[in-house]
Amino acid sequence: MKLSVYSDEYFMKQALHQAILAKEAGEIPVGAVVVCDNVIIARGHNQTEQLTDVTAHAEIIALTAASNALGSKYLPDCTLYVTLEPCVMCAGALNWAKIGRIVYGAQDDKAGFMRYGKELLHPKTTVALGVLQEECSHLMTDFFRKRR
Amino acid sequence: MKLSVYSDEYFMKQALHQAILAKEAGEIPVGAVVVCDNVIIARGHNQTEQLTDVTAHAEIIALTAASNALGSKYLPDCTLYVTLEPCVMCAGALNWAKIGRIVYGAQDDKAGFMRYGKELLHPKTTVALGVLQEECSHLMTDFFRKRR
Repeated sequence: MKLSVYSDEYFMKQALHQAILAKEAGEIPVGAVVVCDNVIIARGHNQTEQLTDVTAHAEIIALTAASNALGSKYLPDCTLYVTLEPCVMCAGALNWAKIGRIVYGAQDDKAGFMRYGKELLHPKTTVALGVLQEECSHLMTDFFRKRR
Repeated sequence: MKLSVYSDEYFMKQALHQAILAKEAGEIPVGAVVVCDNVIIARGHNQTEQLTDVTAHAEIIALTAASNALGSKYLPDCTLYVTLEPCVMCAGALNWAKIGRIVYGAQDDKAGFMRYGKELLHPKTTVALGVLQEECSHLMTDFFRKRR
């Protein structure tokens, strides 16, 4: 089946590309993009090591860049695509930003926000998961296997 | 009673000074400092409006600056003083940073992390609250009263 240009899979591939940039820099391979009106307005990949900063998650970097691009703190018309389930910190940031939709690839049973449920997010935010899950998961397991 | 230079009250006053800087800039008046070995190594005040960035909370700015100052992502020997109970996003960041201790002034029943409990934080992090609570609360209530 040919992918539509504007499918969730298409944008998740762009997030995966960001994750690969993180991996190549020796970072935990997580990537994100923010999409508004089918246009990618912001990208981010995990840079916690390079920046010596625990807050430099892919989502936080992409959110800040998206707000910059739109000139708005709030992003109700945007979708964040991220390769890994956001952590509690990132869910909190996405809540403040009133993000319209979150799409993530792999689950994160240890640090993911879903153990607290969607109530961490803004009531109007919708969530989809499992998009390109296998590729997103593989990047993570491969990274941690090689690090051991 | 004369305050010891190194009391929690002393450092909370410095956080209050940061909160006043936020207020003077038209921001919700929250301020923070990070202390290590009785020295203030980082300061931050809420700048979400000025930076058009929901992640620009006092705590996040102070954490990032503290990691910069010490050259370490992790801050187990540091105390964060903040005038208001941290939100879920900031608690998540403090968790990743493995902060040693958190001292906050006013409670935030609406957005504070304590509704989820200390399990949002690193198991080794200790928490104290209510330091200069009245001054910290007053800044907030005064701000919101004037804004209405």
